[in-house]
Amino acid sequence: MSTVSRVLNNRPDVSDDVRRRVLEFVDSCGYIPNNSARDLVRSRSDAIGVVVRGTGNLFFAEMLKTISSLIEKSGHTMVLHFIDSDADEVKAGAILEREKKLIGLIFLGGRYDYTPAELSLIGVPYVCCTYTNRFGSLSEEDYASVSIDDYAAGYSAVEHLISLGHRRIAALVPSLHDSSVSELRYCGYCAALKEHGIEPDRELIAEAGGCFEIPEAYNCMKTLLESGVEFSSVFAASDTVAIGAMKAIEDKGLSIPGDISVIGIDGLVVTEYANPTLTTLVQPAEEMGRQSVEMLLSLLDGVKTTRHLLVKPALRIGASVRKI
Amino acid sequence: MSTVSRVLNNRPDVSDDVRRRVLEFVDSCGYIPNNSARDLVRSRSDAIGVVVRGTGNLFFAEMLKTISSLIEKSGHTMVLHFIDSDADEVKAGAILEREKKLIGLIFLGGRYDYTPAELSLIGVPYVCCTYTNRFGSLSEEDYASVSIDDYAAGYSAVEHLISLGHRRIAALVPSLHDSSVSELRYCGYCAALKEHGIEPDRELIAEAGGCFEIPEAYNCMKTLLESGVEFSSVFAASDTVAIGAMKAIEDKGLSIPGDISVIGIDGLVVTEYANPTLTTLVQPAEEMGRQSVEMLLSLLDGVKTTRHLLVKPALRIGASVRKI
Repeated sequence: MSTVSRVLNNRPDVSDDVRRRVLEFVDSCGYIPNNSARDLVRSRSDAIGVVVRGTGNLFFAEMLKTISSLIEKSGHTMVLHFIDSDADEVKAGAILEREKKLIGLIFLGGRYDYTPAELSLIGVPYVCCTYTNRFGSLSEEDYASVSIDDYAAGYSAVEHLISLGHRRIAALVPSLHDSSVSELRYCGYCAALKEHGIEPDRELIAEAGGCFEIPEAYNCMKTLLESGVEFSSVFAASDTVAIGAMKAIEDKGLSIPGDISVIGIDGLVVTEYANPTLTTLVQPAEEMGRQSVEMLLSLLDGVKTTRHLLVKPALRIGASVRKI
Repeated sequence: MSTVSRVLNNRPDVSDDVRRRVLEFVDSCGYIPNNSARDLVRSRSDAIGVVVRGTGNLFFAEMLKTISSLIEKSGHTMVLHFIDSDADEVKAGAILEREKKLIGLIFLGGRYDYTPAELSLIGVPYVCCTYTNRFGSLSEEDYASVSIDDYAAGYSAVEHLISLGHRRIAALVPSLHDSSVSELRYCGYCAALKEHGIEPDRELIAEAGGCFEIPEAYNCMKTLLESGVEFSSVFAASDTVAIGAMKAIEDKGLSIPGDISVIGIDGLVVTEYANPTLTTLVQPAEEMGRQSVEMLLSLLDGVKTTRHLLVKPALRIGASVRKI
C-alpha cells in the first residue's frame, strides 16, 4: 500500500518501472486521480453568460445571433438569461455566475450607474454591451464596455430635426431620470435644443413607462397627442418607441411626416420596412456584438485590450422626417 | 494489490474491515472511482439545447424568452444555437448534443420531412416546436411536437380573403416545395381557392428566396408587382413576409388595403403596430413555448404525455384587408 500511495502522490522515491506498473494497475481498476476528475469538471465550465435586459427588445434580438455564434465559435457555451427591463442585471448575473459556473459575462443592456460595491458581486470578467458607466463610480479600469455615445446620439438626432426647421420637438423617452440610456439620450435632446437657442418645454416631454416596449410607447404618444400640445416632430428614444409613436400618430388621423415628423435611434430592420421608413441613427449591432465577444475573450486570456470601445451610429435617412 | 483491486471492483471476497481500510487509504490518496468522476461530469450536464432555425425570425425571438425562462425555472441550463433557415437543424442538434452533453433538445423551427435514419442521430428526447413531421416518415410515437396546423392556417387566411370578395389572390411564400411550413401553408392556399371554385394561377404565386426574411419578401413582391399581373390581395406566408410585401406595395405607390389587401400568419407584436395594422392569424407563441418546454420535461421524466399538441391560431382583424 505504501508503494501505491507514493506513486499516487507523485513522490520521487519510486522506480519508473514500479510507478508504471502501479499506475497501470490503478487504471485497470477504473480509477482516475481526483484532480483529474476535478479538472474534468472544471474544463466543462466553459460557459459565458449573456444577460439580456428587456425581453421585448428587438435590437438585442438582432444582436443575439452574432453574440451567440461568436461565443460558440470560440469553443465556449453561451448561457442566455432574459430579465425584465427594470430588473437588476448585476444580481441576475451574479446568481447566474454561481449557478452555471460562468467564466465570463456579457450584459446586453444595463444601468449606467454601477458602484464598485455592487459590481464586486461579479467575480468573472464581464463586458457591458450597449452601455457604459456614465452615471456610476466604477473606475475606468474596472470594467469593459462597447457602446455608442448615447448622449451624442440623442444630440445628433435632435440636431437633424432642427436642421430641417423643427423647433417644437417632442421627446418620447422611457424615463428622464433612470441614470441610464434613456436619461442620456434625453440629455442629448435637451443639449441640442439649448445649443440652438430653444428652451426645452416640459409639456413636450413624455415618459413612457420606464421601458422601450412598443405598447407603452403607443400609449404614451396617445396621451401626449390628446393633451392638445402642439409640435411638428417627435424625438423617439429608440426605434421600438418610434414604432409605437408612429402608430399612435396614425391612429389619431395625422400623417407622418406631413403633420408630424418622427426620428428614432437603433436602426432595426423592421423600421427600414415600416410605412413610412423610419429616419433613425443606426447602431452597428453586428459590430457591437462582435466587439463585445472579442473583448471578453481577450479579458479571459488576460490580455489588456481597449476596454471601452465607442462605436459610431450612422444616420439612416428614411421618409418619416420632413423639412418645414 | 489484489486486495485493493478486489475492493475497488466491489468484489464480495473482502472482509468489511479490510474494505473500509482500503477505501480510506485510497480516499486519502486523493482518488475517487472513475464512475463517480463520470457521474460528477454527467450530473453537471443539465443542459437543454434550443436550436433556432432562421436567425432573423422575429416570431422565434418572441418565443425565446418564454422557453428560456421556463428551462431556467426547471433548474436546467439552456444552450442556444442559431442556424440559418436553410441549415440542417438535425445535424446541428446532434453536434450540439455531443459537444454540450445535452439531455434534451427543442427545435425551434425545422423541416417537416424527417426520416427515422436521420433522426437516429439524436440520442436524447426532443420536441419539434412550431412544426410536425407531415411530409416525413417518423412514427408518431417517435417524436414530439407543438404546432399549429399550418395547412389549416393557410386555408383559413385565404378563406378570409375569399369571404370578403377576393378571387385574384396572390401567394407570397418562401418556397413551394420545401416539404416544410412554407409548402404546407401554400397547399392550404391552393385548397381554399379550389374549395371555392377558383383555380390557382401560377402567375399569382411568387417564391421568396426560401426564407422568411423581410428583405427577400420585399424583393419578391416588387418583382411580382412589376410583372404587371393583376390581383386584389396577397396571402403572405408569414408576418415577416407580409412586412416586406406591404413595403413593396407602398413603394409602388399603391395603397393597402385600398388597392391591395394583405393577410399574414404568425401575429407579431410589430405587425399589430404596423401601418396599416396587419390582419393575420396569430399563433399563441407563449403557449407554444410553454407547452414545448413542459412536453420535453415530461419526456425527460419518462412520462408519456400527449406527444403531438396542435394549438389553434386566432384571426386578428387589422386594417390591411378590405371587402371588395
